[in-house]
Amino acid sequence: MTNQIMVKMVLDAWYSKIKEADDIFNNLTDEQLQNEVAPGRNRGIYLLGHLTATHDGILPLLNFGDRLYPQLDEIFIDNPDKSKPLTTSANELRAYWKNINSTLANHFDKLQPDEWFQKHNAVSQEDFSKQPHRNKLNTIITRTNHVSYHSGQLVFLRK
Amino acid sequence: MTNQIMVKMVLDAWYSKIKEADDIFNNLTDEQLQNEVAPGRNRGIYLLGHLTATHDGILPLLNFGDRLYPQLDEIFIDNPDKSKPLTTSANELRAYWKNINSTLANHFDKLQPDEWFQKHNAVSQEDFSKQPHRNKLNTIITRTNHVSYHSGQLVFLRK
Repeated sequence: MTNQIMVKMVLDAWYSKIKEADDIFNNLTDEQLQNEVAPGRNRGIYLLGHLTATHDGILPLLNFGDRLYPQLDEIFIDNPDKSKPLTTSANELRAYWKNINSTLANHFDKLQPDEWFQKHNAVSQEDFSKQPHRNKLNTIITRTNHVSYHSGQLVFLRK
Repeated sequence: MTNQIMVKMVLDAWYSKIKEADDIFNNLTDEQLQNEVAPGRNRGIYLLGHLTATHDGILPLLNFGDRLYPQLDEIFIDNPDKSKPLTTSANELRAYWKNINSTLANHFDKLQPDEWFQKHNAVSQEDFSKQPHRNKLNTIITRTNHVSYHSGQLVFLRK
């Protein structure tokens, strides 16, 4: 019962912050996405790709299967904005963003409360036995903070 | 045991994000704090007061006692930046920020894992019996996302 409550707490926060980011992206034109969130900082489109690639990385981490968009990492994770020409359009990235989040939601729905407290794939069995907080649910807490951080920046693209 | 793990997960994230914000504030001069995080947006000093006032509000919410700095709300919560003259210096706000976070840490240390799953003071007993996720620990999840959101903005004050 308590496990179920904890999973609800963490997933409620996740979905609320996904919705916040969604609302920001949906209210920005493709043109606005090309702007930097602040002078000399990342462009909106880079952050859209960055968040999409980060969420895509949750698939193998939580044993949900192969990544959908591994090709995004080189541009949106491994390199800073404006160092490589973008090969993905805003429209494509918007579709990827929606798809990865709904794919994750489908996997989350199937996970039983107890399974959330199992280890994720970036921790060894040995480390996990000493550090049981390094479980699947914990990765959602950190990813929720990550999307909040960037939403705080993306709101600046609004007029 | 699981309760203890869950409390550690949530508090680890909280302390990690407090440290992130601390590092940002500590590396900004008082002069830099007077700048807007992006053109036409909040100043750093406003966000310092805003985060301090928000964290101060956790004291009564979690039954830890009276607020230390209720006078901050009028300027930093109830009104937008630049609508009222600041009556608190950057130095004072820096001290308040450190003090409220360490005061909270002292209270957190004394709370037993099970107590984190009790209701907080903004929910009625009746609502809590139907929505047991509205507990003390949940408020830390939402406040952690809140500090992350504004840290994403405050980093723009760095040169």
